[in-house]
Amino acid sequence: MNVTILGCHSATPRSNYHTTSQIIEQKNNMFLVDCGEGTQVRLREEKINFSRIKNIFISHLHGDHFYGLIGLINSFKLLGRSLDLNIFGPKGIKEIITLQLKLSGSWTNYKLFFHELNNTKSELVYENSTIKVETIPLKHRIYTNGFLFKEKIGLRTINIDTVKKYNIPDCDLSNLRNGKDYLDINGFIIKNDVLTLSPKKPLSYAFCSDTAFYPSIIDQITNVDLLYHESTFLNTHKKLAIKTLHSTAEQAGKIASLAKVNKLMLGHFSTRYKDKNQFLEQAKKEFDNVVLAIQGKKYVI
Amino acid sequence: MNVTILGCHSATPRSNYHTTSQIIEQKNNMFLVDCGEGTQVRLREEKINFSRIKNIFISHLHGDHFYGLIGLINSFKLLGRSLDLNIFGPKGIKEIITLQLKLSGSWTNYKLFFHELNNTKSELVYENSTIKVETIPLKHRIYTNGFLFKEKIGLRTINIDTVKKYNIPDCDLSNLRNGKDYLDINGFIIKNDVLTLSPKKPLSYAFCSDTAFYPSIIDQITNVDLLYHESTFLNTHKKLAIKTLHSTAEQAGKIASLAKVNKLMLGHFSTRYKDKNQFLEQAKKEFDNVVLAIQGKKYVI
Repeated sequence: MNVTILGCHSATPRSNYHTTSQIIEQKNNMFLVDCGEGTQVRLREEKINFSRIKNIFISHLHGDHFYGLIGLINSFKLLGRSLDLNIFGPKGIKEIITLQLKLSGSWTNYKLFFHELNNTKSELVYENSTIKVETIPLKHRIYTNGFLFKEKIGLRTINIDTVKKYNIPDCDLSNLRNGKDYLDINGFIIKNDVLTLSPKKPLSYAFCSDTAFYPSIIDQITNVDLLYHESTFLNTHKKLAIKTLHSTAEQAGKIASLAKVNKLMLGHFSTRYKDKNQFLEQAKKEFDNVVLAIQGKKYVI
Repeated sequence: MNVTILGCHSATPRSNYHTTSQIIEQKNNMFLVDCGEGTQVRLREEKINFSRIKNIFISHLHGDHFYGLIGLINSFKLLGRSLDLNIFGPKGIKEIITLQLKLSGSWTNYKLFFHELNNTKSELVYENSTIKVETIPLKHRIYTNGFLFKEKIGLRTINIDTVKKYNIPDCDLSNLRNGKDYLDINGFIIKNDVLTLSPKKPLSYAFCSDTAFYPSIIDQITNVDLLYHESTFLNTHKKLAIKTLHSTAEQAGKIASLAKVNKLMLGHFSTRYKDKNQFLEQAKKEFDNVVLAIQGKKYVI
């Protein structure tokens, strides 16, 4: 599982500072989270095969998180997409997109499904055989969700040595991966844990942007492997953070600490700060294992 | 009067190929024509003081001509704009923009006026003391207008030598500029053309994108100083041009020739062509004084 940062700045895009957008890859899945203006160009710049995106999650309807969506949807059409596309986002997103498609006479040739969200409690919004995605209700000026990506427990791994030793036929390996014991031709039972190894620990990633300091999310994100938490401001602008319902780096660190996450990634930086290291320093007052989101960087979870 | 090309490519934006957007400067006026995705970043890259834009003209509601508008409007707000902003564009543009402002809870602090167009005949849409802007109805898949920028005839210029010779007081210069003769204290009339020089020839610029080959525009654009005409395709894709209601470079040249314009600028290039010189060559079969639009270049008219 990995996260590629396409943009991690707040408010207005600049030449080298793009607004929020991330690619999350997990096994064969490629998810897009948020889609600020210019995201389709950022995807090209990072040489990401974006036709693989089947599901897009939009946190909220502030422009720096979704103004690039209509362009991406339109470009998918122009590039001949045939795969279905699912959009998960706040109520209203369907009207915004379909109004523009209607007025431009540019309906997509592929199927576009909107899953509009308005629940203020966490809900499961997406699930397949390997991963689940839940909303993380956040506290911001408008209705906003973070998203929690949780891998499911995978299949057990074949222990090649013991499987060879007991001459287990290939056709039984699937049952072993699913945890069944093995019955040999003499009626002996070989316990599954002799023939297999435990599955890898499922990984989890919590995306939390935009939000005020909001300890209500802690239960849900406890122990996640990676928490991306917005830190729009430094402590010098703490009052502004309170007023605009954003967080400071130190508050992001506090959330990470309370939730005992493995690693914290800071993002959604205000472009007013030239020296990003101060974000790290201020978050470290509360939580040590912290990194800065860097545009264009892929983070393996 | 000059035109700065922010983007001149069709369909989907790329890292180095931006979609349609231009700045037209004339005296103290700064107009924006079309606003593809990423236009606000292009304005920054060209170091254009875009708070000076008071009037934006949108040709049609295909994404490569207006997806950047909502972001620009929103950034104006975030940057503290107080000046009024006028948007001239096809009917529907107001609903698209206001829906997004409403759902994001982000009404502008400045006044935003929409001038929605649905006339299929040319009309005067903007006028101030030095310039007029008329629509140029074009032929495309959806309702589309080009725009004709026509300078008004300016004031006469003071002939410093003769004004000195006849000792004309400063308080009379304004009357001279407006064409009045001068009556001296002895009752003699000095003719205006002795004391002033003719005003500069007023300039004109016609922006025609997107459109099929459409000779109906010729009367309106005859003798313009600069014609920007779309040339999405080369002759190898003439059938595609006909199908999609776009033009080839040769057709753009034909229009320029029939309209006896001073200079033709080609733009709205399909990104499928690597060698842009073929656009020039094919247009030159019909019209000699032709240039390619080059992103980032300012063209003095």
